[in-house]
Amino acid sequence: MKFYDCAGAPSPRRVRIFMAEKGLDIAAQQVDLRAGEQFSDEFRALNPGCTVPVLELDDGTAIHEAEAISRYLEAAYPQPPLMGVTPVEQARVAMWEHHMEHDGFLAVAEAFRNQSSGFKGRALPGSHPVEQIAALVERGRQRYRNFLADLDARLAQCEFVAGPAFTLADITALVTVDFAARAIKIDVPSEHAHVRRWHQAVSARDSAKA
Amino acid sequence: MKFYDCAGAPSPRRVRIFMAEKGLDIAAQQVDLRAGEQFSDEFRALNPGCTVPVLELDDGTAIHEAEAISRYLEAAYPQPPLMGVTPVEQARVAMWEHHMEHDGFLAVAEAFRNQSSGFKGRALPGSHPVEQIAALVERGRQRYRNFLADLDARLAQCEFVAGPAFTLADITALVTVDFAARAIKIDVPSEHAHVRRWHQAVSARDSAKA
Repeated sequence: MKFYDCAGAPSPRRVRIFMAEKGLDIAAQQVDLRAGEQFSDEFRALNPGCTVPVLELDDGTAIHEAEAISRYLEAAYPQPPLMGVTPVEQARVAMWEHHMEHDGFLAVAEAFRNQSSGFKGRALPGSHPVEQIAALVERGRQRYRNFLADLDARLAQCEFVAGPAFTLADITALVTVDFAARAIKIDVPSEHAHVRRWHQAVSARDSAKA
Repeated sequence: MKFYDCAGAPSPRRVRIFMAEKGLDIAAQQVDLRAGEQFSDEFRALNPGCTVPVLELDDGTAIHEAEAISRYLEAAYPQPPLMGVTPVEQARVAMWEHHMEHDGFLAVAEAFRNQSSGFKGRALPGSHPVEQIAALVERGRQRYRNFLADLDARLAQCEFVAGPAFTLADITALVTVDFAARAIKIDVPSEHAHVRRWHQAVSARDSAKA
């Protein structure tokens, strides 16, 4: 297997943390997103959507999208489970993972990609050009603030995002919070004590270094 | 179990088709989205995100988000499989499902919700107000046109979206294409012969009536 990675980009980090939690050590190849390597013919043959991360299996199968790669690794390496075991647990992780991605991760990406000069013409990931829209910068920032408030209410009820155990939903939430602090300069406000408690705990895991 | 539904809304249809393919007959309760019933205290207690579909289990657990409900039903009622069986099949379905949702379904929703007067202040689903942005109408329409071109290239290679078998990814794609025709008046152009062949085939299944 080979993992197409980009140090510093948030989506591949979701998979790096997932692999670290599973104890997997998969050979990685860096894709230089700043130089536009994801638009090369070679990379397009692997993923026509021109995004990282990609996991290439030994038979040549290329799996893209962080969640799909996680799904493969969970099925192929079930221990420790990170996506739930029983039907209800699996559904809870899928539900919270969806919230973390849509309401959190995509909100930060919306603010960042519509603002940064490096993303001109690439306001959304993918192979098609998408122009920046200035109004989406503040919309994305407000959506992220709403997300933090909702996450605080959730973490008042349970130790981790999807319940009593650390799961994929915590990984996506951790990457989102760190991405926001760096890319759009929004830290977790001090009134969100539950998010701060949780962030400290998940950041102290070995996998968070990935 | 009880299924919180809304006839005419696209997200619950994803689950209705999934249930029909599984041969499941689950009692449904209509939620009147036009009347704002999703913002009632009773519904908020079930789903603070104020969206349908929701599946309420007999123990009171509420699962929201179409994909998470599908995940529960797939685990609890494995036959016929709609989300892959082997690790690679599971990953392929997850990957294509992600593309169908992000590049297709969300593009149509973007165009529709930023245009329709019925969605003023609710340009994104959820409990937080989001104002409409006029520029997102054309952006959403263009994203959907790009999606159809990419889907045509994919369906030139295989019978169904995720490979040789009908899966969840076909359900999301079918709901997306029908949603676009009705809500933003974009039909599949005649040059996309592969999408038209596929759409005719999946529309002829009994489940498409759901």
